[in-house]
Amino acid sequence: MSDEQNKDKQIHRRDVLKWGAVAGAAVAVGASGLGGLAPLFKPAATASKQSEDKNEQIVPFYGKHQAGITTAHQTYVYFAALDVTSSDKADVISLFRNWTSLTQLLTSGATLSGEQKNKYMPPQDTGESQDLAPANLTVTFGFGPGFFEKDGKDGKDRFGLKDKKPKHLADLPAMPNDNLDKKQGGGDISVQVCADNEQTAFHAMRNLIKQSIGVCEVRYLNKGFLSGGKNGETPRNLFGFKDGTGNQSTKDENLMNSIVWVQSGEPDWMTGGTYMAYRKIKMFLEIWDRSSLKDQEDTFGRIKSSGAPFGQKKETDPVKLNQIPADSHVSVAKSTGRQILRRAFSYTDGIDPKTGYVDAGLLFISFQKDPDRQFVPMLKALSAKDALNEYTQTIGSALFACPGGCKKGEYIAQRLLES
Amino acid sequence: MSDEQNKDKQIHRRDVLKWGAVAGAAVAVGASGLGGLAPLFKPAATASKQSEDKNEQIVPFYGKHQAGITTAHQTYVYFAALDVTSSDKADVISLFRNWTSLTQLLTSGATLSGEQKNKYMPPQDTGESQDLAPANLTVTFGFGPGFFEKDGKDGKDRFGLKDKKPKHLADLPAMPNDNLDKKQGGGDISVQVCADNEQTAFHAMRNLIKQSIGVCEVRYLNKGFLSGGKNGETPRNLFGFKDGTGNQSTKDENLMNSIVWVQSGEPDWMTGGTYMAYRKIKMFLEIWDRSSLKDQEDTFGRIKSSGAPFGQKKETDPVKLNQIPADSHVSVAKSTGRQILRRAFSYTDGIDPKTGYVDAGLLFISFQKDPDRQFVPMLKALSAKDALNEYTQTIGSALFACPGGCKKGEYIAQRLLES
Repeated sequence: MSDEQNKDKQIHRRDVLKWGAVAGAAVAVGASGLGGLAPLFKPAATASKQSEDKNEQIVPFYGKHQAGITTAHQTYVYFAALDVTSSDKADVISLFRNWTSLTQLLTSGATLSGEQKNKYMPPQDTGESQDLAPANLTVTFGFGPGFFEKDGKDGKDRFGLKDKKPKHLADLPAMPNDNLDKKQGGGDISVQVCADNEQTAFHAMRNLIKQSIGVCEVRYLNKGFLSGGKNGETPRNLFGFKDGTGNQSTKDENLMNSIVWVQSGEPDWMTGGTYMAYRKIKMFLEIWDRSSLKDQEDTFGRIKSSGAPFGQKKETDPVKLNQIPADSHVSVAKSTGRQILRRAFSYTDGIDPKTGYVDAGLLFISFQKDPDRQFVPMLKALSAKDALNEYTQTIGSALFACPGGCKKGEYIAQRLLES
Repeated sequence: MSDEQNKDKQIHRRDVLKWGAVAGAAVAVGASGLGGLAPLFKPAATASKQSEDKNEQIVPFYGKHQAGITTAHQTYVYFAALDVTSSDKADVISLFRNWTSLTQLLTSGATLSGEQKNKYMPPQDTGESQDLAPANLTVTFGFGPGFFEKDGKDGKDRFGLKDKKPKHLADLPAMPNDNLDKKQGGGDISVQVCADNEQTAFHAMRNLIKQSIGVCEVRYLNKGFLSGGKNGETPRNLFGFKDGTGNQSTKDENLMNSIVWVQSGEPDWMTGGTYMAYRKIKMFLEIWDRSSLKDQEDTFGRIKSSGAPFGQKKETDPVKLNQIPADSHVSVAKSTGRQILRRAFSYTDGIDPKTGYVDAGLLFISFQKDPDRQFVPMLKALSAKDALNEYTQTIGSALFACPGGCKKGEYIAQRLLES
């Protein structure tokens, strides 16, 4: 099966409907026992519409890789980490079967509308997305180190899966400037839901959490946004700088194989998978907004408006290390010679009582095939030297191993859970 | 000046650019002393594009009424209440001049890009919306009772404006089921920012707050979303029911005059204005999601999927009071015979530690010309009898008086502040 999740291959809802019976296929999955969605409902075939609206677009669910990694960046994210409270592997298997079935259904553009026969039962779907288009909805699952070894290294092997633990899966090393809130980091399972409509994303997250009741507890739930420009410009973070300029093209499968996708040297279930680094980084907007444009640009090593590195004209021009401050963010990151795929979102969280200003920051998410060789060296270098540290503080940290994708008839993480 | 804010009159960015020099006009406003935006920047005339994308659309700023009231519902909101800490009316005047100038600029689709000459100054604009289209951005300002009388009725008349206080402006009466957090209600000034892109909305709110430093403190800042369906269906709230079905057409100026717009009997500055009721209502999703479809539908008095009132076929069919439970939300609200214009948004706020489930609810916002005759009777009836109370709790409450709109050369609330 080819990788259908690249952005150049994104298809429209109407095409899916034209190809026929996606909704029907979803019911078949449910009926075959893969899903927790008993066929109480008939998924409604909604009217297709000629539109280039992003809300109408579908990201394919099945594939060699999970969606939401090299998928074109969506505007909204809900990100949750869950701790598994059950010690029964069968519960986890059942959960991932149900999650797979629901994710396939929701991302395909099918909706759980129509008449529910037994009104004395709770609705299976919470309903707030009934009339919404799929909006490039994706769901990406991962496993933290605690899933394999509870309570730290050499911890309890709850599910008999310790020998399937990925080689590089461990808590990220502590950095000197971190101010970690344990309740904002770690977790046994990660669930990243992205879409171009917040309500679509929230609906999926809520119903996934609903399915996990009795098996997991939610450790944290964050949400974010990051919007690309109207003419396809790189999105800007809350410091007003472009975020993700250094990313390689996600359309280039060879590049993605060299940066993102695990191909060998790991337990079989990680083939086609990747590691997700997660950092919740508070950004001191109040201090930043009082800094001069020169200080801001020196901090990044780029021109704020254009995104061009110092001494260059365009955002995409190569960085000349001898032209930018040695402690600038770009210089330090670039000097490590490491590459990752950034996929960050901004968050806002009301007012910071200390400053009376907006409490906000970045849900930093990156994907890489080997965090020890790619992400950790970059993290260490940035932690030691990055001028940006004056304006930021990491309050949450986690590393997750994201399994490869699945084919029709399989469920996510099946190769791990049924090995 | 005619009311240009109705949704049928929304125009596209390209039209504005075609009409010429909106960006230039914005600079002229700044230079004339109305704005706090000294012409350090040249607003960039961005390329216009043929698109029906909502992100490309502009809601006119100038008009008889403020925008964001009868404007077609946007998907995202940032809502803040501020307390004025300065006791100098000149500071408040200056703030509203600056706010007007910035709001006019941002909502017109002009952006503060281009080269900043003095790099040793902080950027005037925080920059994260530089490449974004205006996305139907609107900003709506209002005044709470504390603006006129600090610390309750017969409180201090800080600005000599007590005799300009609107007739019906007072804290909403306490309801038996309220569980109010004072820090989530009240406030001297309200700022409602709506847009079809969260980043656009946040950027406006952040820069408005930035301008208020030294004059105001932010009391609370909430954000929300509510998305209409792909074929124009009424948006659904987090209970999965359609929200706003009972609203009258905002295109009908006569109806809006009878429900929303103050025309006489109030201080002059309220002409063309309205009252905004604000309630932050926690919704117990965990209990709701375990309730049967029948219980849910009995609670509202409508069919969940279609939105039709009991005994009817379509959402818009008239409610037959004898066919729906007397304690259902629709029955109780309808029985009062009062009308308001609802403009609510859903909020989510991570995980509720008590239930381990999503902490979420509704930022209820409604507009009405006479809260004592329209909103308060409805609130009292619902508080006493509404079956929905079992699943909800109000944690924040406020009432604001929103002044009428302004013409070019004026600023918002000028008729109040310079009377």
